[in-house]
Amino acid sequence: MIRHPALAVSLGDPAGVGPELICAAWVRRETDTLRPFFAVGGAVLLSAAARHRGLALTVQPIADPAEAAAVFPYALPVLGLDGAPYQPGQPSTAGAHLALYSLTHATQLALAGKASGVVTGPIAKARLADAGFRHPGQTEFVAQACKIPAENAVMLLAGPQLRTVPLTVHCALSAVPGMITHDLICNRTRITAVGLQRDFGIASPRIAICALNPHAGEEGRFGDEEQRIIAPAIATLRAEGIDATGPHPADSLFAPHARDSFDVALCMYHDQALIPLKALDFDNGVNMTLGLPIVRTSPDHGTAFGIAGTGKADPGAMIAAIRMAGMAAARRLLYPA
Amino acid sequence: MIRHPALAVSLGDPAGVGPELICAAWVRRETDTLRPFFAVGGAVLLSAAARHRGLALTVQPIADPAEAAAVFPYALPVLGLDGAPYQPGQPSTAGAHLALYSLTHATQLALAGKASGVVTGPIAKARLADAGFRHPGQTEFVAQACKIPAENAVMLLAGPQLRTVPLTVHCALSAVPGMITHDLICNRTRITAVGLQRDFGIASPRIAICALNPHAGEEGRFGDEEQRIIAPAIATLRAEGIDATGPHPADSLFAPHARDSFDVALCMYHDQALIPLKALDFDNGVNMTLGLPIVRTSPDHGTAFGIAGTGKADPGAMIAAIRMAGMAAARRLLYPA
Repeated sequence: MIRHPALAVSLGDPAGVGPELICAAWVRRETDTLRPFFAVGGAVLLSAAARHRGLALTVQPIADPAEAAAVFPYALPVLGLDGAPYQPGQPSTAGAHLALYSLTHATQLALAGKASGVVTGPIAKARLADAGFRHPGQTEFVAQACKIPAENAVMLLAGPQLRTVPLTVHCALSAVPGMITHDLICNRTRITAVGLQRDFGIASPRIAICALNPHAGEEGRFGDEEQRIIAPAIATLRAEGIDATGPHPADSLFAPHARDSFDVALCMYHDQALIPLKALDFDNGVNMTLGLPIVRTSPDHGTAFGIAGTGKADPGAMIAAIRMAGMAAARRLLYPA
Repeated sequence: MIRHPALAVSLGDPAGVGPELICAAWVRRETDTLRPFFAVGGAVLLSAAARHRGLALTVQPIADPAEAAAVFPYALPVLGLDGAPYQPGQPSTAGAHLALYSLTHATQLALAGKASGVVTGPIAKARLADAGFRHPGQTEFVAQACKIPAENAVMLLAGPQLRTVPLTVHCALSAVPGMITHDLICNRTRITAVGLQRDFGIASPRIAICALNPHAGEEGRFGDEEQRIIAPAIATLRAEGIDATGPHPADSLFAPHARDSFDVALCMYHDQALIPLKALDFDNGVNMTLGLPIVRTSPDHGTAFGIAGTGKADPGAMIAAIRMAGMAAARRLLYPA
């Protein structure tokens, strides 16, 4: 019999919407057919968050992740320290320490094989820095914990209608053209192809690579990055047997009929990847890291301090992140790399 | 009694999908409550296009635009020269000459008040150049015919769920940051505000102005155009009483709930304006030119030579362009500037 460890879910900033959304996801474990998960840290806090949101939920502290699966059907299993009181919308240093503890511990459990993957709740980078966090984001933190260079940890953004991978992320738009290189495109596409095979079961992923310029530059009339960099990279990838196509003009690539023609779009910059994803489906976006030895997903939204504790936060993205992590983890157990 | 001239519709390239979509729109004149329009040129060609598409339609040549309204209920009124045979998918020099004649004549009729506005069918710029066309596109052509500087002819892209105005259009992405100026933002926003008042009846249009950089640059951490250029321009506009807001991070501005908060989004570059519009609704996009003395719209698609004559082309955008022109024209007749 295959042993199925549960997923570890980190709290995110406890003053944000993370704790209440973990509770809301647990309440929908049957309707949304979620695989067993446990929260890392904050048992008292999670009880308070559930009560605050009017959710019928029992928290059950566990001493070992192996207990989670048996507890999960009737209570939310929580492993580890309590750490901080529930003060929604009021970030604190104690809360930042709990968030960092939860993230670190959840990642270590996944690396040790005691959790089948990690789902990270939303943090506020500036707050976490107060607790000694020195990474640009959770993706880089998890990559380092996995001893993977940050450039090989690939951010996949997935909604119900679309998957995108941004080639560059948090940089000025003016810096983007200088950052697009043959190696960057090839490297990220290769990791993306392997990731979609391994974690989504797509045998030969169809990867649509976006142009940088409008209309793909119209053969060099406005911008030559397509001819100079992107098309040669696609040729290299195709020669390796990867089903990469493009460069595609980005404006029409996300139209309804065009979306059926690829499994993932590799985008040149942040907004090119995020605009279509959020326009089509704001509340169910998942951020998954490809290229890691462990499964890691996250809901694609922030801490939303402004609405924490009001019951307004939509649990769609948290539920989708848990589902996707569970699906990928089950696949990795069945088909080890 | 107010005299209502009909709309003039130019054929576009006769080898493209323009003629058959004009016919398809006429067939749906009652279900889609379209105001009277007439085609400019190509009576024989339009008959052939309708037959080819299996549409029940009679073409009736007219000698004066004033006859169009009376003919429209039972036949498609067509004014002017025949010009070229119907050869879908096979652009020719004769076809380019007919397209240019149709565009020129339709625009002149609108300027003379004999048409209440002009709807331009899709052309292929490279083909039209063979017939002596020297403009980057139809927008610039119409602007010059109206004696309006091209920079004051503002492209509004409108779908059923969203309106956007791109500040820059057909230029390399690397050139965009250098083209964004205080004056450009202010000038285009003022024209947009007046246009939405005049042609859409929105008393105080809410204009959301996009950031250039991801997350609006996070207070200068990646890119300072928001602080240096865009925010000061918004302050200038607000001081004039224009309801401009921003700079808004573009990735979340087009999410479902955010779209309710503005009437139009001013975008910094082509794909920022076009990606959300086409992702949300590819088949019904209209390109309208604001800032002109005449009403001008166009379906937001190309000639689609590849599917011309096959019956596959969706008439949604042509119908939407005719509806929008009719609405704006009726408003201008009721409330002259």
